[in-house]
Amino acid sequence: MQTIETPLLPKANKSMDDIETKVDELLSKMSLEEKVGQMRIVHAQIGVELGEDGQLVLSDHFKEQVKHGIAGIKNPGEHDSPETAARINNLLQKYLVENSLHGIPGMFVTESYNGVDATGTTDFSRPINMAASWNPELVQQVWDKVGREARARGMHMCHSPEADLIRDPRFGRMSEAFGEDTHLVKEMVVAAVKGVQGDYEGLSSTHIGAVTKHFAGYGQVEGGRNFASVQISERDLIDQILPPFKAAVQEAKTLGIMASHGDLNGIACHANKDLLTGILRDEWGFNGYTVSDANDIGRLFFFMNVAENEDHAALLGLEAGMNVDLYNEDCYVRLPRLARENPSLIPLIDKAAGNVLRTKFILGLFDNPYTDEAAASLISRAEDSLELALELDLDSLILLKNENNTLPISSTKPQKIALVGPLLKENTLSQFQEVAGESIEFLAEKGFALTNGDPNYPDLLTADECAPGMEKAVAAAAEADACILFVGGDEFTSKEAFFAFAIGDRASIDPVGEQVELFKRIKNLGKPVIVVLKHRRTLSINAFAADADAILDAWDPGEQGDRAIAMTLFGQSVPSGKLPATLPRTIGQLPFHYSQKKINYKKGYMFIENGPLYPFGYGLSYSSFEYANLTLSASEIDTEQSLTASITLSNTGKFTAKETVQLYIQDTHGSVIRPAKELKAFAKVQLEAGESQIVTFEITPEMLACTGADMVRKVEPGTFVVQIGGSSEDTMNASFLVK
Amino acid sequence: MQTIETPLLPKANKSMDDIETKVDELLSKMSLEEKVGQMRIVHAQIGVELGEDGQLVLSDHFKEQVKHGIAGIKNPGEHDSPETAARINNLLQKYLVENSLHGIPGMFVTESYNGVDATGTTDFSRPINMAASWNPELVQQVWDKVGREARARGMHMCHSPEADLIRDPRFGRMSEAFGEDTHLVKEMVVAAVKGVQGDYEGLSSTHIGAVTKHFAGYGQVEGGRNFASVQISERDLIDQILPPFKAAVQEAKTLGIMASHGDLNGIACHANKDLLTGILRDEWGFNGYTVSDANDIGRLFFFMNVAENEDHAALLGLEAGMNVDLYNEDCYVRLPRLARENPSLIPLIDKAAGNVLRTKFILGLFDNPYTDEAAASLISRAEDSLELALELDLDSLILLKNENNTLPISSTKPQKIALVGPLLKENTLSQFQEVAGESIEFLAEKGFALTNGDPNYPDLLTADECAPGMEKAVAAAAEADACILFVGGDEFTSKEAFFAFAIGDRASIDPVGEQVELFKRIKNLGKPVIVVLKHRRTLSINAFAADADAILDAWDPGEQGDRAIAMTLFGQSVPSGKLPATLPRTIGQLPFHYSQKKINYKKGYMFIENGPLYPFGYGLSYSSFEYANLTLSASEIDTEQSLTASITLSNTGKFTAKETVQLYIQDTHGSVIRPAKELKAFAKVQLEAGESQIVTFEITPEMLACTGADMVRKVEPGTFVVQIGGSSEDTMNASFLVK
Repeated sequence: MQTIETPLLPKANKSMDDIETKVDELLSKMSLEEKVGQMRIVHAQIGVELGEDGQLVLSDHFKEQVKHGIAGIKNPGEHDSPETAARINNLLQKYLVENSLHGIPGMFVTESYNGVDATGTTDFSRPINMAASWNPELVQQVWDKVGREARARGMHMCHSPEADLIRDPRFGRMSEAFGEDTHLVKEMVVAAVKGVQGDYEGLSSTHIGAVTKHFAGYGQVEGGRNFASVQISERDLIDQILPPFKAAVQEAKTLGIMASHGDLNGIACHANKDLLTGILRDEWGFNGYTVSDANDIGRLFFFMNVAENEDHAALLGLEAGMNVDLYNEDCYVRLPRLARENPSLIPLIDKAAGNVLRTKFILGLFDNPYTDEAAASLISRAEDSLELALELDLDSLILLKNENNTLPISSTKPQKIALVGPLLKENTLSQFQEVAGESIEFLAEKGFALTNGDPNYPDLLTADECAPGMEKAVAAAAEADACILFVGGDEFTSKEAFFAFAIGDRASIDPVGEQVELFKRIKNLGKPVIVVLKHRRTLSINAFAADADAILDAWDPGEQGDRAIAMTLFGQSVPSGKLPATLPRTIGQLPFHYSQKKINYKKGYMFIENGPLYPFGYGLSYSSFEYANLTLSASEIDTEQSLTASITLSNTGKFTAKETVQLYIQDTHGSVIRPAKELKAFAKVQLEAGESQIVTFEITPEMLACTGADMVRKVEPGTFVVQIGGSSEDTMNASFLVK
Repeated sequence: MQTIETPLLPKANKSMDDIETKVDELLSKMSLEEKVGQMRIVHAQIGVELGEDGQLVLSDHFKEQVKHGIAGIKNPGEHDSPETAARINNLLQKYLVENSLHGIPGMFVTESYNGVDATGTTDFSRPINMAASWNPELVQQVWDKVGREARARGMHMCHSPEADLIRDPRFGRMSEAFGEDTHLVKEMVVAAVKGVQGDYEGLSSTHIGAVTKHFAGYGQVEGGRNFASVQISERDLIDQILPPFKAAVQEAKTLGIMASHGDLNGIACHANKDLLTGILRDEWGFNGYTVSDANDIGRLFFFMNVAENEDHAALLGLEAGMNVDLYNEDCYVRLPRLARENPSLIPLIDKAAGNVLRTKFILGLFDNPYTDEAAASLISRAEDSLELALELDLDSLILLKNENNTLPISSTKPQKIALVGPLLKENTLSQFQEVAGESIEFLAEKGFALTNGDPNYPDLLTADECAPGMEKAVAAAAEADACILFVGGDEFTSKEAFFAFAIGDRASIDPVGEQVELFKRIKNLGKPVIVVLKHRRTLSINAFAADADAILDAWDPGEQGDRAIAMTLFGQSVPSGKLPATLPRTIGQLPFHYSQKKINYKKGYMFIENGPLYPFGYGLSYSSFEYANLTLSASEIDTEQSLTASITLSNTGKFTAKETVQLYIQDTHGSVIRPAKELKAFAKVQLEAGESQIVTFEITPEMLACTGADMVRKVEPGTFVVQIGGSSEDTMNASFLVK
């Protein structure tokens, strides 16, 4: 076990000692009901509105729920402009403060994984795109904007980012997280938390607190089915799943942690004391608050069946270290009675409520619970936010294939280009035209949609339903000199599965419907076909990979996405994204992350081409890069020493371009079966044509450590191989010995 | 931890105390080299042959390998007749005894999962068929014959049965084991071990010892890839994976245990002291010997990379409790030197060698190492063996679909029936004609094969290659009144993947090649199509399930298989097999065993019909059965009490038929997430038409226990639901309370 220092305080705050004193003072004055009020978050949709007179209208139900005070309110003002939201939030805060015996303000909570989930804010690309950018500095800048836009409208916390590793593309929430790799996810999560929290210092005034989720193992649901059970060994939990959370706590100082819907090897995460108290607080020194996922404490009873009734569910949560009950109106509200029956619970309630109160002090809410209504609309969607959105969209585009330098397309040579396919958006045409200029004549023809668009139970369109659109799309392509085909998946074919209704996971990773048929028919026209992939889960794209002239993988970019795609296709930007998840040839290869145990890779399957279609970390450029002179600073070190690895990267092509240099470590022998290789560092470097640069990485003991047969995480002596290159399968290698 | 009594001794043997004394005496006289000789098995193929003069010819290599004695020899005489094999084995044994300072005989070892793996023995159906029969009594009789046939030719041990749970049909060895379910596998393993060992009493003279494998978790290889890593929680290991092994040790008293190729959560099974010593010996009281899988101790170094070199690999194996090194000629032979360098190893070597010597005493080899050469050919393939083979084949056939009572086919009504499809064997026609009699005219036309038949790297035949055969097969069907279509998979499309060459696992569970096309074309002829499935892994058979008139699932029956199929199709036998593994609709549903954690079943996938195509335990009959009057003997018990559940089963159809009554338990609440349901008992019952019978099961505390949050396996109070019926999804339910 290790301990860490108390987090730095936001500059505007009192010292941490002062805060602890104030928390204790407050708690000493509060009733059990008031304390438990600080252990609940309710949703604004139960009754917070702005009346026509500009005054707040609260439902009786809402008032009843917050009558003893409340930890926070989810999403007040979400469908209002920044300025109106700020007004609602100020009025709401005033109500809470004035109706609290001790003047305790509430935290207003949003979601923000690709921008604040509210009207009038910047729509950034999804986390999977952020991961594809391999650019944590840029991602931190983006989340900094997110934090500012949220705080400006009067919000204080966000239930983001997601620190889960998604290794099963059947899972409908793949695009909400940062891909399959521990280190890449960790870097992104740290960037996100630091960004949205203003590197902690912004918390008391300009930024919001992050709630990192879903703790832990949520991405490992069996079969990629939301809410399914999770089996993961303690060893892989420590070495692979937990590091992004640990870094969120210790490096980025996340204010909150949300537990996972699921279980770990049979123990529900919301009732998991080892996780919520042992690891999180005792080992990592976390002093923020833990919050349940929606209704999940009650769900210990009515879904997971590990509690006998609601009382039992509340006790299991409290005792495990679950501080805040999200939404459930009949679970933690039972705690005052339970604590009167069993006073030994009171210290646990004090701890939980204290964690929330401490957070409110850190957020500066006792000093100034209100926001500047006039500033809200100036900060939201400011010019520099929109520029950052475009920059991120550009940086996240992955060039998977570029046969015969099909891309970039010349915008000076007059030609007719068809824009077709179900992922074409209404404003794609205008953005393309604006970027490409007048020499290019575009023909836009979506063809057909993927589904009937039912938000809960979308049905795929049949071949017959697609047929008329298919003919139109093919006709448009036939009329053009080249075709840009927008295919993949959308918000109806990959989404979060909810409880009461709607599923979102898939049992297939093939593109749905008639998309491959559309591609084949257009390809048969004999003209260049450029495939633009938009999607929210990894798709098996063998047909496109075999026959497309070029493939640009755009995942799900933000509001500037189509502009970014056009700028890239027409050479105003050089693509530099790299795959944040292995791209398999077939669903039958799963699990297929590149860092699997090395023995998993020794054998393939019969009757298929084995190996990934495109490996983790893969992505082309319009330029070309050469790696040379891999040099280690030592050939032998001891278990506590570091060494450096340097490589000369040269831009041997014709474009100024960025390359992400990736460093993998292979531990050749261990007391346990080791991964085939693991990403341990990366650097995104921009070079002009002809330019070279030496890129140097420090290899620290932590990067070599693993949890061995004795369950101790440490560096085991032996030979290690350093692999540096432009993808997980294209590296220069050098080895060194740890004695 | 619990201890058990020493196993019963075979009747002919001295008392166990005598044996221990003799083992100790022997060990005290043996050199380190001789002891380590007892820790190695070599393969006869390195140089054991019968010369033309009828005398044994041993290679110098072989002699070198056994010069200090040897634990055993694998497969001597495997390609010879029983009588010749017996002669070879007697000569070989004589050589070993006479060349041993202490007259120590060798154990001759075979494989026997569907009959002795040697020339001239009965070919029984595969273990997956045994499981499909749900008839442990019959399975025990079959393995009793296997043991007798093996011992008669001079063999003493078999590396069978497999106690692995196979839940991923991508795995090429699915048919070698007993399916997906803990209880069903356990019952089958106990039957197999008891059978082959002559219920232990036959060990000294008429039967052979079982080596139960692969200990443990081998079926749980990631991605169904042979040799891949295994992640399984300690809880599921105890509750789901280990029970068949524990029963093999404690109930059936298996003489040997073979370790798994793989690892458990990073720890290689061959170096896993917790498993090989802690659980197996200290907890379960095992006193037989442990043996590596082929070369797997050396593989700790050169494949799994958990050892730094061969010395280290030998040490890891020895210290973990791995007694016998199978095949490797440069691993355990290092132990004498290592033990001289480190004498603390000697007690471990004594233990290992002692376990082997003890087994040889139990096998009666010191009293009479030889077999009766004249008896060998009388015992092998005796009439009653062949009858049992047919009985098992009949009992294992599963009727999945029987639209409009297509089956049975009348053999009195003259008609022309086509037998077509790639799974048709050369002698199928003659067996069908013999069974069906003269009224039926058969047209046999295989059409095409599935692969080019390369034993190591089989390639699928292309549509073009299949085209001529396709036309012939369709033509044959067109000429007939009905068609019996033999489709599925064969020994080339599902097989064990080996190291040096050849793969055997698949990334798809669709029937390969042109089989579905063949079915569609024949179905389009408008005549009844009866699909006979032969296969070695679960296949996704949606097309057949949708449109075939009847489906008989034969898995991979033994030498009487086609006769059994014909007898069943023509009504001379009523099918009674039940699925030993859930049949999914698509590979995308995996993992999909019926006993998954209950939360896994709450949500399905978008765009597909959810649920299994056919559930675990499913199988129709020509007759029909009704379940009524489910009665529990108590509505409340305490955690140490049993109760009984009774149900009235009625044969409401027109045939004398067998039904397997299945009892599942659902634990509604637990301290951990519980399985949706678990099979805990079953009974195969034969009833005449119109007959009824009350079937009664005892429900014991062990059947209600689980490994709870505290890692103690015990009965947790709460409500349990008893589910009794003819499949896992068609049951009558009643609940009771445990206080």
